Amino acid sequence: MAIITLTTDFGEKDHFAGAIKGAIYSELPDVRIVDISHSVSPFNIPEAAYIIFNGYNSFPKGTIHIIGIDSELNEENKHIAIKLDEHYFICANNGIMSMICAEIAPEKIVEINIHDKVETSFPVLDVFVKVACHIARGGTLEVIGKLITEIKPIKDIIPFVNDEKSQIIGSVIYIDNYGNVVTNIKRKFFDSIVKGRDYEVYARSYKFKTIHNKYCDIVNFSVSPEKRNDEGKGLVVFNSSDYLEIAVYKGNPETVGSASSLMGLNLRDTVTINFSKS
Amino acid sequence: MAIITLTTDFGEKDHFAGAIKGAIYSELPDVRIVDISHSVSPFNIPEAAYIIFNGYNSFPKGTIHIIGIDSELNEENKHIAIKLDEHYFICANNGIMSMICAEIAPEKIVEINIHDKVETSFPVLDVFVKVACHIARGGTLEVIGKLITEIKPIKDIIPFVNDEKSQIIGSVIYIDNYGNVVTNIKRKFFDSIVKGRDYEVYARSYKFKTIHNKYCDIVNFSVSPEKRNDEGKGLVVFNSSDYLEIAVYKGNPETVGSASSLMGLNLRDTVTINFSKS
Amino acid sequence: MAIITLTTDFGEKDHFAGAIKGAIYSELPDVRIVDISHSVSPFNIPEAAYIIFNGYNSFPKGTIHIIGIDSELNEENKHIAIKLDEHYFICANNGIMSMICAEIAPEKIVEINIHDKVETSFPVLDVFVKVACHIARGGTLEVIGKLITEIKPIKDIIPFVNDEKSQIIGSVIYIDNYGNVVTNIKRKFFDSIVKGRDYEVYARSYKFKTIHNKYCDIVNFSVSPEKRNDEGKGLVVFNSSDYLEIAVYKGNPETVGSASSLMGLNLRDTVTINFSKS
Repeated sequence: MAIITLTTDFGEKDHFAGAIKGAIYSELPDVRIVDISHSVSPFNIPEAAYIIFNGYNSFPKGTIHIIGIDSELNEENKHIAIKLDEHYFICANNGIMSMICAEIAPEKIVEINIHDKVETSFPVLDVFVKVACHIARGGTLEVIGKLITEIKPIKDIIPFVNDEKSQIIGSVIYIDNYGNVVTNIKRKFFDSIVKGRDYEVYARSYKFKTIHNKYCDIVNFSVSPEKRNDEGKGLVVFNSSDYLEIAVYKGNPETVGSASSLMGLNLRDTVTINFSKS
Repeated sequence: MAIITLTTDFGEKDHFAGAIKGAIYSELPDVRIVDISHSVSPFNIPEAAYIIFNGYNSFPKGTIHIIGIDSELNEENKHIAIKLDEHYFICANNGIMSMICAEIAPEKIVEINIHDKVETSFPVLDVFVKVACHIARGGTLEVIGKLITEIKPIKDIIPFVNDEKSQIIGSVIYIDNYGNVVTNIKRKFFDSIVKGRDYEVYARSYKFKTIHNKYCDIVNFSVSPEKRNDEGKGLVVFNSSDYLEIAVYKGNPETVGSASSLMGLNLRDTVTINFSKS
Repeated sequence: MAIITLTTDFGEKDHFAGAIKGAIYSELPDVRIVDISHSVSPFNIPEAAYIIFNGYNSFPKGTIHIIGIDSELNEENKHIAIKLDEHYFICANNGIMSMICAEIAPEKIVEINIHDKVETSFPVLDVFVKVACHIARGGTLEVIGKLITEIKPIKDIIPFVNDEKSQIIGSVIYIDNYGNVVTNIKRKFFDSIVKGRDYEVYARSYKFKTIHNKYCDIVNFSVSPEKRNDEGKGLVVFNSSDYLEIAVYKGNPETVGSASSLMGLNLRDTVTINFSKS
């Protein structure tokens, strides 16, 4: 059974996501539809890029991913379909796919050209669903688009490193449900620079000397639970997707506060790592 | 495989929607359940009416739609099931269906009368699920209710037009995830009045002389992207469901603002169209 | 077809819930996955306990429930799987299951011990999914864990009663989507104490002399709808899950206010019932 996932900024209230599902089931009664997220901030392309990049690869090979963010067709915002890592992605050519494509070379990219047959102000419903169902039925990309080789980039995907390799300057690309602050510094990239040296992570006025692998690494289990003072403490971890993350232990944006609210860290803010002389 | 959709004001957190699904799968292991929305504002009947009206018809014929808004049974709020456009709707007789029924004549309406068998304070779980599963198994409406011919209306579904047909007075019926402001003025209705005349759309102190078909119609693509100033601009469009909508280009209620927040437009506010003498 | 439900604090935006589903479908293409909630407040164990307790039992026997709240593995927070009421529950041993287990004796509890095979910072994805799929394939709990007999308790599940049985002191354990305030006083418990006596329910400065069975019990239907003044009135009911609940008729936290906002009632606040001398 084919799987089609949905990642959009439609929100939880409007009928849009439901209408998409109805249209897919009308064409393909036996497909499986899975929501990845409908709560991407409106028109927020880097956020959508982070979510789909870190969500897609636990799905089986052959899964078709519809990404409905800023998808109104115009002369600068064409629709594309990409085959990459044996998954299919359907979206606007607005930068969303550049985060994935920076790490994994696409097998094939087409610019969708079935629009002369569908006049529409709701392209996710009218175009993306058609393309997804075509692929789910075993159709090839060439039938619904013309091959292209370049896609539109987004900025700030890759952190900056100075020539001496003594400093990484990264930036905040995502803030998660716990208010934890995700940067564009990935574990592999960090590992390629650190080479056994000491380092300090700076975020605004905060400084950290260790990057942890688990949030509870900062808990002192030798002290009895009642006497501990760990909740609300800041720390740096590589998160489950291997991005460097500024976190607060058991943070909650609506009650005790989170890394974002307590440290005043927001999207596009700078996070720096300084390495000691080796 | 039968499809049952859910549109409720249960929200995303409580166990209610999950419990409904468990109850349906307990009766019918092979049915397909699709969420249209669980984030209708509590007890907001016009909002639910707009969502179900514009969501239902991308589903296949024969789909069964459960609408759980203000469904506590009492002498003034009976439960009904409606067959219309070859779809089935199960809800309270509180006005939700009057928006659809104003445009599409129902084939059959019954007042559900199986309540003597089910004592309940959770009627969506105990009554609507039973009725939905009955229909999904091929049962007829007459078995679970008695035929009626009238349903309860809601106000403000249809805009007002003066006798000279020089003015339409509409109102705001929905505010979507992007903060765009949807009125009760539909394209077909507007087309039946305009007859080639010029017009001006008024919303509070804002005035618009064009109704667009796409949001990006206001973008000046001859100017390079860095020099443009389009985001945040107000405009009027017929939206993807063909309602006249006051929008802001790439608005976001939580950051740059939206049509609703920037222009101060809320549910039930008036939007007027004045036509010039032809 | 096996059913796996998900109850987590992942929120609606992040990729976590989608990734879990992808991982499950990768192992078991034919399983059915149902969301109960992803909007549990971060790390809020009592809230998760209330949701899963009141959501699980409308699902068919044999359903497998994954509960992803505060599930990072450490020496104090082990992972468990429980068979109870012919349902399966997979979660951290952090108190979540103690509300259910206080009412229904578990058939079997194991502490999961497959972690030497899976190194992970995302245990719901890497451990809970593996265990769920094992159970869905018909595997036994003993294969993935070692039998234990005790689980970690949470406080405040059961209300206090004085020796004379003239007073119940309960507390607020949940606030629902309508802002209604759910206490830990269940109908059965109340019935075992009241024995036909009069009583008064106290919540802050509010006093109620009746516990209703339906919200609309307080509506005076002999008055015409336009002249009524019921919306926004406070009342006490046993809710659809049989918990004593302080409610506001047709409340809405975002507009007219709710029981929680209007009466200033929050999680862990005290609700008292005083019984008259019989």
